[in-house]
Amino acid sequence: MSLSLYQASIPLLIRGLENLAAILQKAASHAEAQQIAPEVFLNARLAPDMFPLLRQVQIVSDTAKGCAARLAGIEVPSYPDIETSFAELQERIAQTATFLKGITPAQVDGSEERPITLKMHSQEVHFTGQAYLLDFALPNFYFHLTTAYGILRHNGVAIGKKDYLGEA
Amino acid sequence: MSLSLYQASIPLLIRGLENLAAILQKAASHAEAQQIAPEVFLNARLAPDMFPLLRQVQIVSDTAKGCAARLAGIEVPSYPDIETSFAELQERIAQTATFLKGITPAQVDGSEERPITLKMHSQEVHFTGQAYLLDFALPNFYFHLTTAYGILRHNGVAIGKKDYLGEA
Repeated sequence: MSLSLYQASIPLLIRGLENLAAILQKAASHAEAQQIAPEVFLNARLAPDMFPLLRQVQIVSDTAKGCAARLAGIEVPSYPDIETSFAELQERIAQTATFLKGITPAQVDGSEERPITLKMHSQEVHFTGQAYLLDFALPNFYFHLTTAYGILRHNGVAIGKKDYLGEA
Repeated sequence: MSLSLYQASIPLLIRGLENLAAILQKAASHAEAQQIAPEVFLNARLAPDMFPLLRQVQIVSDTAKGCAARLAGIEVPSYPDIETSFAELQERIAQTATFLKGITPAQVDGSEERPITLKMHSQEVHFTGQAYLLDFALPNFYFHLTTAYGILRHNGVAIGKKDYLGEA
């Protein structure tokens, strides 16, 4: 018995996207209830040289669709980074989740040894499918998801670990 | 072809622990160079009701050893939470990594359907081995690793995504 590459990737990414959507919904409600401009949260950062919340969410989306598409051996869909509101981020997340839900186990399974090349900082990095998922895509996905969560916690939004993990 | 449960767990956790050790080493050096008491960093938090850096590191250790032991079907080693310095946190991380390195693929593989029960907030949560790893342990592990990183970035330590991901 063993894990399929699909099981170790697509459902986790969809779950993370759905948890992020719920977290952002709470943040938008908090902003409205407290009469704080949503941009205060969307532009908040943990450090001056870290990305703000809005960009963190875009990168969660990018990491999810990039991972799913590369493991499935199809073109990574390009979404323009034009969101400026919580509502538009929700659309971006929903669009990403819909893309992932359209990928089948048959497309992903068996890609453990598929060569995957990423361009990072103008140099190419080579992975197998398995190493790409486990050493790069998943840690990155959770990094940006957690950082989005951390930005909101730092700014007083009432969310907790349950919101990050979703329903057990 | 498929992933083994071992491949999807133990090496990732060891890699994360080693990356955390390197990040904390940079933080300790930064504190020393800037003549800032290490406790300033060890007690720093992203929010008043989030755990400080020191506790985040202990939880990274707990999540790693708990995950590894439960998947291997052995008792989770108990480490007392007595660390008060960067040096002691390094020992804790090294001890955890040594424990994980002693676990073999044969102990973990085939545990996909092993029933795993966690007590959380006085209620029991039931998982299969696979769901425990993918839906709980890995997201939690990266959560606390990223939060430790975020606390240090927020406090001006010069670390970057490469330190979090480790060598590709």
